[in-house]
Amino acid sequence: MTPRRNHRIDVAYVGTRYHGWQVQPDRATVQSLLEQALSTLYKEKVNLAGAGRTDAGVHARRQTASYTAPGILPPPRVPDAVNGLIPRDIRVLCARFAPDGFHARKSAVGKVYRYTLYMGPVCPPFRADFAWHLRRTLDTDAMARAGSFLVGRHDFTSFCAHADGEADRIRTVTSLRLTRSGPLLYLWVEADGFLHHMVRNIVGTLVEVGYGKRCAGDTPAVLNARDRRAAGPTAPPQGLELVRVRY
Amino acid sequence: MTPRRNHRIDVAYVGTRYHGWQVQPDRATVQSLLEQALSTLYKEKVNLAGAGRTDAGVHARRQTASYTAPGILPPPRVPDAVNGLIPRDIRVLCARFAPDGFHARKSAVGKVYRYTLYMGPVCPPFRADFAWHLRRTLDTDAMARAGSFLVGRHDFTSFCAHADGEADRIRTVTSLRLTRSGPLLYLWVEADGFLHHMVRNIVGTLVEVGYGKRCAGDTPAVLNARDRRAAGPTAPPQGLELVRVRY
Repeated sequence: MTPRRNHRIDVAYVGTRYHGWQVQPDRATVQSLLEQALSTLYKEKVNLAGAGRTDAGVHARRQTASYTAPGILPPPRVPDAVNGLIPRDIRVLCARFAPDGFHARKSAVGKVYRYTLYMGPVCPPFRADFAWHLRRTLDTDAMARAGSFLVGRHDFTSFCAHADGEADRIRTVTSLRLTRSGPLLYLWVEADGFLHHMVRNIVGTLVEVGYGKRCAGDTPAVLNARDRRAAGPTAPPQGLELVRVRY
Repeated sequence: MTPRRNHRIDVAYVGTRYHGWQVQPDRATVQSLLEQALSTLYKEKVNLAGAGRTDAGVHARRQTASYTAPGILPPPRVPDAVNGLIPRDIRVLCARFAPDGFHARKSAVGKVYRYTLYMGPVCPPFRADFAWHLRRTLDTDAMARAGSFLVGRHDFTSFCAHADGEADRIRTVTSLRLTRSGPLLYLWVEADGFLHHMVRNIVGTLVEVGYGKRCAGDTPAVLNARDRRAAGPTAPPQGLELVRVRY
């Protein structure tokens, strides 16, 4: 009998058509489609653990997931085997055997997300599902200043969608950068972990700073409030993508 | 009564969901959606002339179209007015009044198309609708050599889908370039006009050269054959985009 092995796969997807990563009854999710394909291949129910539970409409350049299954399929053959059973907007990029203790979510030491804003009168159709369209130009210097206060170890309750969800809402943001390419503004955030809607709530708050509705210097007070109402609105999902998971 | 004016609009679209540019009975096309929106705005039937009749699945970064209508709407207000009535995957980028004799197709002196190839084992989901996925790496030097024979004034019958469609199949290719960015290979073609499927048939032929199935030096013979069967297969539509129209 083939011994059971722990597997790691890296996956990319366009989130537009899916109700997020996580399995939900009667809804198409990325996890459920991958689990179905893996279960077909291994002829047993496969449970997949993903590093980041991306929401509906959110994309992944490189999500990592892990599962245990009989070692019947050499890892180099896994991407083609799975990709043949799932839609083209989800792709397994690579697969490998992982050490026994490896768990895609629990073993992760950091994740990088990127949020894309398109500033201009008309959003090109190619960007519509991948950016938040803002007609006015933002004060990116003020946004960067506001963002700098978020770097470090903080209680991010003010940026968390469901305050009841997580007991510990302290996270360490190791990097927060804004980069610009013509009308495109990217916010890159790296942290040891993210609360629900954390990046989108940071973006919504920074955009208010960029519009002059809010002062950059007030950001420490927003953190200290530990109250969701102190921060700005939640940015729409389509601008967000999980860039990579660090182990 | 407001005098009638000639209008020019520049349009971008993702062609994935549409049966091409041109109006077809009972099918969603880019032209038909734009004509419906314009007819609503001007309260009369508007006929739109597009510079390039892109096929189903083909995209446009910047297509140009013209129409005559009462000058009741200042051009700067046209994009928002039309865009409010059409899906997000079609966008009017800008509008202006055009001289009376201007016709988007007949006045065009040149068009630029780009074709995108993705070379690698797995096509990223973000590219699936915008590239032809080829698993093997191509010999791009040989492809460029083959392409160089197509530059100039030639009878492109061998690269034309329907030999009966156009009486005159002589076109002048002013530029044909290959550029590469990692796994992405772009073919840029500029000509005074294009026959049906001409770019896609050029790409299909060059890919055979890139795979070593065909010699670059045989390209003049392919042109001279004036026979569609002398050239390679038709590349799939999703890699093609109309980049701009020259006047």
